[in-house]
Amino acid sequence: MTRPRPRPDLEGLAPYSTSDTAQGRIWLHANENPYPLPKAVMDEIVSETSRLQLNRYPDGDAGAQLVRELASYAGVDPEWIWVGDGSNEVLLQSCLAYGGPGRTALLFEPTYRMHYRQARMAGTRTEISLRRADFTIDADGAVAVIERDQPDVVFLCSPNNPTGTITPRDHIVRIASAASGLVVVDEAYYEFCGETVVPEHVDNVIVVRTMSKAFRLAGLRLGYGIAHPDVLAGMRSVRMPYAQSSFTQAAALVVLKRRDEVLDKVDAVVSERERVARSLSDVADVFPSGANFVLFRPPDAAAVLEALAAKGIVIRDFRTLPGAEGCLRVTIGTPDENDEFLAALR
Amino acid sequence: MTRPRPRPDLEGLAPYSTSDTAQGRIWLHANENPYPLPKAVMDEIVSETSRLQLNRYPDGDAGAQLVRELASYAGVDPEWIWVGDGSNEVLLQSCLAYGGPGRTALLFEPTYRMHYRQARMAGTRTEISLRRADFTIDADGAVAVIERDQPDVVFLCSPNNPTGTITPRDHIVRIASAASGLVVVDEAYYEFCGETVVPEHVDNVIVVRTMSKAFRLAGLRLGYGIAHPDVLAGMRSVRMPYAQSSFTQAAALVVLKRRDEVLDKVDAVVSERERVARSLSDVADVFPSGANFVLFRPPDAAAVLEALAAKGIVIRDFRTLPGAEGCLRVTIGTPDENDEFLAALR
Repeated sequence: MTRPRPRPDLEGLAPYSTSDTAQGRIWLHANENPYPLPKAVMDEIVSETSRLQLNRYPDGDAGAQLVRELASYAGVDPEWIWVGDGSNEVLLQSCLAYGGPGRTALLFEPTYRMHYRQARMAGTRTEISLRRADFTIDADGAVAVIERDQPDVVFLCSPNNPTGTITPRDHIVRIASAASGLVVVDEAYYEFCGETVVPEHVDNVIVVRTMSKAFRLAGLRLGYGIAHPDVLAGMRSVRMPYAQSSFTQAAALVVLKRRDEVLDKVDAVVSERERVARSLSDVADVFPSGANFVLFRPPDAAAVLEALAAKGIVIRDFRTLPGAEGCLRVTIGTPDENDEFLAALR
Repeated sequence: MTRPRPRPDLEGLAPYSTSDTAQGRIWLHANENPYPLPKAVMDEIVSETSRLQLNRYPDGDAGAQLVRELASYAGVDPEWIWVGDGSNEVLLQSCLAYGGPGRTALLFEPTYRMHYRQARMAGTRTEISLRRADFTIDADGAVAVIERDQPDVVFLCSPNNPTGTITPRDHIVRIASAASGLVVVDEAYYEFCGETVVPEHVDNVIVVRTMSKAFRLAGLRLGYGIAHPDVLAGMRSVRMPYAQSSFTQAAALVVLKRRDEVLDKVDAVVSERERVARSLSDVADVFPSGANFVLFRPPDAAAVLEALAAKGIVIRDFRTLPGAEGCLRVTIGTPDENDEFLAALR
């Protein structure tokens, strides 16, 4: 018996590493929100959980309510909302529907590594443009590449992971206006900068967001897309039946309704980001960030990682990432965690 | 601005309908388990929920524990287990890894409609073989087709949805032995017949199961695959990071550990299935079922649907399904629900 061979075009696509087996005491590696949900919010989630009828498929009404709350939060009509199991599912579905065999996706690297993977999973050919040395995108150059190559999917990420770089809204609109394909704008970290291409975005854009970061719900796996209903109609054929779990819908609804209580730590994270960046700039090159993390390039990254590991502090190693060689990324934690990080660095 | 065009090969693939907007009082249309989880099990799930750290990504240890419990239940080593958001995600991932552009999937219809969709989503060409009039598979004919066409993916479903038909284990083994591609055996309803191709299955098989049916967890969206580690290695490149939500992992773990309490309604469902099938056979052609539903062909299906709707009873309409023309499918409910269904039918 010979074993079946996977698709040849997937060869060499190594599994995505989440570093969830890292050992440590202070976790500043996964861009999580360091603050647990407020107790009152968690209590309501638990109370809703006790009412779930888990033997039944997720409730269509709860799903519709969730769509309405996301729409209200995003400032768009409910017809513009697409819900997924984490923003990663929305990104994959975008590629499955608008990329795929015989089509091309354009990426501006270094960026969130899943974009490349999702394009490849869907059988899409990938084309890589490089960001500048400061990780900004050359908008004129991007427009020229798009007009020449007519990619079917264009990935943008703002603020960009892992660099933190904001691409200004008017640059995104110019790039999208030049494209005839779908422009996927990953705004996973939107709340930490407030700059978004919603709702003024053009009709060939899908903005993809998540509740994992500002909403403190990384454990929930709830993401959403915002796009013209015609764009979303083109994605319905790649949707799974029954959608998100009953718990996911219930918990997301509680958090969205009480979002003032949940989002009130965003300002604290942003001001800590500025403090950490300032302090880091004494000992490293620091890249401006609009997210809940900071990318920096110390003179000796290996020594930094070693000093941090000795204190049980885990950050993310991007030393070998093409374009970001020698860089490390630290997620913004609580003030105490950030103090420990900065102290260990010195 | 012209809108981007979805992949041309997806054209005509209509969205999957879950009929979750159906109106009614007694739900016998979605093959759900009619029994809620036992109170003690639900209490433990709620208690585990109160301990979740939702601001953090799902815990790698919990994921590993879940894999171990699934392996213990399935009677295989943990290295043989693949976990997904519902069996539908596992089925899609199987197609993404082993089907895809330039490849072919063979299906025996009528069968679970998602198989065809998942193959198409992944860009796989589909080839349809028809089941016999009694919905069994001609194993000799299947082997001949496989030897001639060498499909990259072969879908089997036992018990088959929506017909209930069991394909005997030795037929599945013969079919799989003839195939050089991946053979996907959907055993979503396995517990209601006890017949499985695990663990004696051959090395090119992935058995796909779900906790939605016998485990009373349709609302949770947790499925799993069982396959040789080499087969699973070929699927790692199409996996999403961070996997299942913290709640899904915690709830599935509680239910698996207390599975004796949860699976103890399987016998009741099976004996009710036999009672409903016997009673139905007075007024309709009934097809033998190894699942928690029965497919039947009444002389006037439209009149049956009307009579049931008048009583608020919802079942599934397959009158226009190729190969199953004129058929209806009823999910086995509680004895009272089944009595109401049978009374309304007369």
